Amino acid sequence: MTNFSAELISRFIAIVGEQGAITNPEDQVLYLKEWRDLWVGKTPVVLRPSTTEQVSAIMALAYETNTKIVPQSGNTGLVGGQIPNSDGSEILLSLDRMNRMRDVDVLNNTITAEAGVTIKALQDKAAELDQLYPLSLASEGSARVGGTLSTNAGGLNVLAYGSAREHCIGLEVVLADGRILNGLSKLRKDNTGYDLRNIFIGAEGTLGIITAAVLKLVPKPRRVDTAFIAVPTPQAAVELLSLFKQKASNSMVAFEIMSEIGVHIACKHLAAKRPLADVSPWYVLTELADAPENALEETLEQALENELVTDAVIAQSQTQRDDIWAVRERMSDAQKHEGGSIKHDISVPISSIPKFIEEGTKALHHFMPEARLVAFGHLGDGNLHFNVLQPVAMDKQVYLSHWKEMASIIHALVISYNGSISAEHGIGQLKREDMRLIKSDVQLDIMRGLKNLFDPKGILNPGKVVPR
Amino acid sequence: MTNFSAELISRFIAIVGEQGAITNPEDQVLYLKEWRDLWVGKTPVVLRPSTTEQVSAIMALAYETNTKIVPQSGNTGLVGGQIPNSDGSEILLSLDRMNRMRDVDVLNNTITAEAGVTIKALQDKAAELDQLYPLSLASEGSARVGGTLSTNAGGLNVLAYGSAREHCIGLEVVLADGRILNGLSKLRKDNTGYDLRNIFIGAEGTLGIITAAVLKLVPKPRRVDTAFIAVPTPQAAVELLSLFKQKASNSMVAFEIMSEIGVHIACKHLAAKRPLADVSPWYVLTELADAPENALEETLEQALENELVTDAVIAQSQTQRDDIWAVRERMSDAQKHEGGSIKHDISVPISSIPKFIEEGTKALHHFMPEARLVAFGHLGDGNLHFNVLQPVAMDKQVYLSHWKEMASIIHALVISYNGSISAEHGIGQLKREDMRLIKSDVQLDIMRGLKNLFDPKGILNPGKVVPR
Repeated sequence: MTNFSAELISRFIAIVGEQGAITNPEDQVLYLKEWRDLWVGKTPVVLRPSTTEQVSAIMALAYETNTKIVPQSGNTGLVGGQIPNSDGSEILLSLDRMNRMRDVDVLNNTITAEAGVTIKALQDKAAELDQLYPLSLASEGSARVGGTLSTNAGGLNVLAYGSAREHCIGLEVVLADGRILNGLSKLRKDNTGYDLRNIFIGAEGTLGIITAAVLKLVPKPRRVDTAFIAVPTPQAAVELLSLFKQKASNSMVAFEIMSEIGVHIACKHLAAKRPLADVSPWYVLTELADAPENALEETLEQALENELVTDAVIAQSQTQRDDIWAVRERMSDAQKHEGGSIKHDISVPISSIPKFIEEGTKALHHFMPEARLVAFGHLGDGNLHFNVLQPVAMDKQVYLSHWKEMASIIHALVISYNGSISAEHGIGQLKREDMRLIKSDVQLDIMRGLKNLFDPKGILNPGKVVPR
Repeated sequence: MTNFSAELISRFIAIVGEQGAITNPEDQVLYLKEWRDLWVGKTPVVLRPSTTEQVSAIMALAYETNTKIVPQSGNTGLVGGQIPNSDGSEILLSLDRMNRMRDVDVLNNTITAEAGVTIKALQDKAAELDQLYPLSLASEGSARVGGTLSTNAGGLNVLAYGSAREHCIGLEVVLADGRILNGLSKLRKDNTGYDLRNIFIGAEGTLGIITAAVLKLVPKPRRVDTAFIAVPTPQAAVELLSLFKQKASNSMVAFEIMSEIGVHIACKHLAAKRPLADVSPWYVLTELADAPENALEETLEQALENELVTDAVIAQSQTQRDDIWAVRERMSDAQKHEGGSIKHDISVPISSIPKFIEEGTKALHHFMPEARLVAFGHLGDGNLHFNVLQPVAMDKQVYLSHWKEMASIIHALVISYNGSISAEHGIGQLKREDMRLIKSDVQLDIMRGLKNLFDPKGILNPGKVVPR
């Protein structure tokens, strides 16, 4: 049904009121354009409900009239999951006006937040309470609760605190037919029946619309130790990670790996400062929160003895800490200054990372000898940004035209390691058809069964996640 | 189909071989009797497959012939989920011969274990590697991976490490029709499609049979601090918990509350030693692992100043630590020596515990003025064992005849606090019909939808979890 009747649109608008509906295409742009311009959608109306009851009424009407609905919260997704298609046959439902914190329970260490609350607002509220909401993302100023749960967002602190899934203990969801599933439980422990919460987390709005969640806060660290460490090989980095787990117990909050070329370009193009004078093929940035006294120093000493580490510096001030983090944080942007970059968001078992990097480099150079690998990322989670810079002399567009071919080589290797071709970002529309490659028939069959159970009319975020 | 043909039984036995089948009723007792004699089942044959392929073949045949199957691993469950019914119409499938650790990955900090591996064996293997498998249960010598995941078991270390669900990153499941869902992923991060793992965890074998799992190990603590603390009220205990979260960061691994009567009976009947000379209405036992230096002492000092705490002792040796834990651990058994005890495994939001105890005590004494409340448990998780001892002068059987009535009063109060009437133990057959009281129509509807999707013929652990 590509042609909406004016009467149907009016019925939808009546639910949210004029102030909750956008029909002017110019005002819709904010909602219809993916932030890197990779996808641009079209919709007869952007609906911005302000209550769960309005979302419920919208879905009841959509169910009755077979209207397709694309839910969206912060529009920061990276795989096109939040953008309607371009033929105008889908209504965009934005949760950005549902931005209340319904309950802040200091002694229970929970906040009950609606889907439109930004991650930054949650972090700020937690800080006010001298606690921590541990999700930490580049997009945290714009990303919202509904989207980060629907994509099970990761980010910088997964090593210590897990992904978005792990922060959520209760959910409110509007189902395809408009019924409200109220699971806003504040309980840490509740073994009564099937786990309905995790079905919707990471489902990218294809099984139901998350309207609110109970989120856990954690203790705010009292002291943070940060070190920048030169290591000879990825194998040494993995063994160093293991040593830190032994020596620093559960205090490790970050363990990031990066190669020399990444440090080089961050310093060259974006004025990051080299934390260590000497060049090393690989580096590790680690951060401990409330570690046992001297755990950082003692672990590094032992690692030096064992030749896992060749040099290291420990931040002695907040400025030094910021400088160290700047190297890591500028690595993504710095790539732009070197021409085209083909990116892979992958994970493999941590123990396989050294071999994966070795074989990935070989496969890459077999495919394109002069391509430059900028591998870096969350080694502590087994998650690498296996990014590849163009050969210096190659034309950028010619290079980028190899994207699909290169990705298929890298992804085939990832799959041979039982790895993931989307460690953090989800499936959306970008990787939907890849699902056939990475999932078994049994897995696809169950996913289709779930989709059919929760969305029998196929009106919830159609064409996302589940391959046709 | 209560009457199995000899031919059908032979076909099942042919799958596992004679050594994998028990038909002699005497030898079946171990599998058919719940350990407290609360349920005794009957079955034509106990099947003990030794491979996933055999489980798959059993289910394929069961599916073809509409044969009902009850999976079991360690037979330590507390709600009758693992026991077939008494009319002999169900085949018991024991996973106790599937006890291999298929993969031990030190650098990835994972063990891939079959469903029949005991929790003790996992703990021992982790200790060999100088790591920790954090599930810790009274029944850990007998409980097995399949059962602890199928019931999402809790235990003593949930505060720091979560329930069984949180330790599992990959699953292998045999579906109702015999197909094998291979999800034995060793990845920390993988955002590709719906979360199929958590559907089966906590489903008590009613949606599929867990045959193997990838389990996370965590760093083994280097130092443990244990304290026994006198507090004036449950409110003070909750505020003390909050203070410890601030001061001791993520190092708290146990925070148990108990009342004076519990300490009294543990000392009187089972020779536990009073850790503190003076009597207090309430006590807290807390344990920190690798806490910041002096965190325990400093927190207790501040708590004394704030009058949250009236007295405290810190264990100075392993013997003292054992003595302190003995008080807590003997509390359950000690109740037997005081006559009948009616037990409630409940949770409420941590912030509501003081008010819940107050109102629960009132409701209890309104119902039976001389009943003696022995409330104790995992305050850090919001999980209380709200147990009630008989009045001193009452006959035990007369007292126990009030079980249902008392439970319905306590559970009604729990429900009014949005709490759980089964925080740790699951639903099984014991609490199946209570599901109608605690779940909304929408929740029950989704559960029935899932049951029908995964078990359309109703052959997987019939009559458990989902109310009729």
